[in-house]
Amino acid sequence: MTSKNKYAIGVDLGGTTIKLGIVTSTGRILKKISIRTEAEKGPKKVIDNIIAGIDELIASSSYKISGIGIGCPGVVTPGKGIVEDPPNFPGWKKVNIAKVISQKFKTRVYVDNDANAAAIGELTFGSGKKYRSFIMITLGTGVGGGIVIDKKIYHGDFGAAGEIGHISIDFNGPKCNCGSYGCIEAYAGNQYLRSRVRKQLKKQSESKLWKLINNDLSKVSPRNIQGAAELGDAFAKSVIDQLGFQLGSAFASLCNVLDVSVFIIGGGIAGFGKPLFDSIRKTISRRVMAPIRPRVRVLPAKLKNDAGIKGASALVFHHK
Amino acid sequence: MTSKNKYAIGVDLGGTTIKLGIVTSTGRILKKISIRTEAEKGPKKVIDNIIAGIDELIASSSYKISGIGIGCPGVVTPGKGIVEDPPNFPGWKKVNIAKVISQKFKTRVYVDNDANAAAIGELTFGSGKKYRSFIMITLGTGVGGGIVIDKKIYHGDFGAAGEIGHISIDFNGPKCNCGSYGCIEAYAGNQYLRSRVRKQLKKQSESKLWKLINNDLSKVSPRNIQGAAELGDAFAKSVIDQLGFQLGSAFASLCNVLDVSVFIIGGGIAGFGKPLFDSIRKTISRRVMAPIRPRVRVLPAKLKNDAGIKGASALVFHHK
Repeated sequence: MTSKNKYAIGVDLGGTTIKLGIVTSTGRILKKISIRTEAEKGPKKVIDNIIAGIDELIASSSYKISGIGIGCPGVVTPGKGIVEDPPNFPGWKKVNIAKVISQKFKTRVYVDNDANAAAIGELTFGSGKKYRSFIMITLGTGVGGGIVIDKKIYHGDFGAAGEIGHISIDFNGPKCNCGSYGCIEAYAGNQYLRSRVRKQLKKQSESKLWKLINNDLSKVSPRNIQGAAELGDAFAKSVIDQLGFQLGSAFASLCNVLDVSVFIIGGGIAGFGKPLFDSIRKTISRRVMAPIRPRVRVLPAKLKNDAGIKGASALVFHHK
Repeated sequence: MTSKNKYAIGVDLGGTTIKLGIVTSTGRILKKISIRTEAEKGPKKVIDNIIAGIDELIASSSYKISGIGIGCPGVVTPGKGIVEDPPNFPGWKKVNIAKVISQKFKTRVYVDNDANAAAIGELTFGSGKKYRSFIMITLGTGVGGGIVIDKKIYHGDFGAAGEIGHISIDFNGPKCNCGSYGCIEAYAGNQYLRSRVRKQLKKQSESKLWKLINNDLSKVSPRNIQGAAELGDAFAKSVIDQLGFQLGSAFASLCNVLDVSVFIIGGGIAGFGKPLFDSIRKTISRRVMAPIRPRVRVLPAKLKNDAGIKGASALVFHHK
């Protein structure tokens, strides 16, 4: 790798904040900044903000940048960098971010969905390095997914592929934001999980979780569920076990369809750690078809903080 | 296309019967024969039977054959033609059918899983001709699946991909032969469907189906369910509608993961026709993520009789 491939800018475009950083080809962040997205002001303002952020990064450093990678919500046209109607970004439709940014900075620009960028981040810098194919799942407010096949993102016909969060595991299950029922996002998405645990907790007067939330149900969070589980609380442990079962059920279906058997899991809820991962593994092994069983791997994501910036920068290194 | 690409032999290796035919590059069968598989006698005997069948076809005709395609049950190593432990074939493990047949007949031999061969058949001769990507589902004793992406079969890491029948739509659903629960095969597989309808019918004393089966529950079959539905029987119609809902629920998850939105459906139960297809379409449209909705197509397979022979022969034409 020549010196010109040593540094890239990663842009993590979120609904409220844009995080930007200069990242080395080994995934180290040398400098980072964070600015407001101002999504409510429409696409032109958002792009102006991205440009201002990149300007600031470039102005304050002397690294020779070999490209810019942008991870953003919504559907991105494969290979074109056109972002289509990202959720919570009013006034978009189709915006060719790649073209605008590339013309401005005279450098190559790669744009992909943020979940796909996270997957490329793990492929380039993280737990996916040694696998040809894997599925990356980010457990956050939503459940994001990126499918890596033969070291490349699988985008599908129009760039909308990889919505692992919207595999239904129960056609009669809880209603999901997407309009369907029983999607794993409707079990594992942060808000859904909190709300379900709040309801269940009311019948668990002995649970140690009550103390951790000071008897205030609004304080239920993945963090204190984990805290209670670590104190040995049976209810909190069952919540994590159940979540692993729900995720594992969906992953088993995925294995059967894709014959991809490596799952890399990131995002806040992945912090549940070993008990969650063990439950996922156990469920997949019981439910996947026999030939795939011995190959199943469930791994934590390696990129934690700033995974968004690193993943976005990896879009550049990936296209070296 | 030169004349040497005009004819291929298609071999449909089933658990009890081997069907073989000489097929033109437009999918017409010029000659066909059918012999016993004798799977119980082990792989050597099965291969001898395949060879005898091919010999017979070649001996009795003067067509110049440009290759042999074989569709068989089980997992086939992509690009290698090695067949791994097909269900109901005792004594196998890994058998390199492609190599043996190709050495014997000095011609190219392509082997793939029968569901994948069916998909290549539709791609080459049938309803898949005008699509780059689609999913083929064969509704029979089992529920077979083949995924076509960019005009090629998606095989997955080890050739086990495409098991659409083993997407679970209810983690608490009926137990499936594969060991999991709520797989669509456990709803739509012929035996599962019959057995469910038998149970439900006991509570439906008014159903016209009773007359069509001469009050003999063992006679319940897709054919007479369809017959009753065509007579306007509400129960039989609800069975078909429900089946469409079950399949549609799984297909919506598939769309969200793969961003492939064309489904081609073959096999006996596809004979339920428009009421089944309408129910599948309606369910997918309600459950799939919004960007994919306008692109959803659910089509009947074009190859009906001898789809197995034609699909197997298409493996040859596909590799021209």
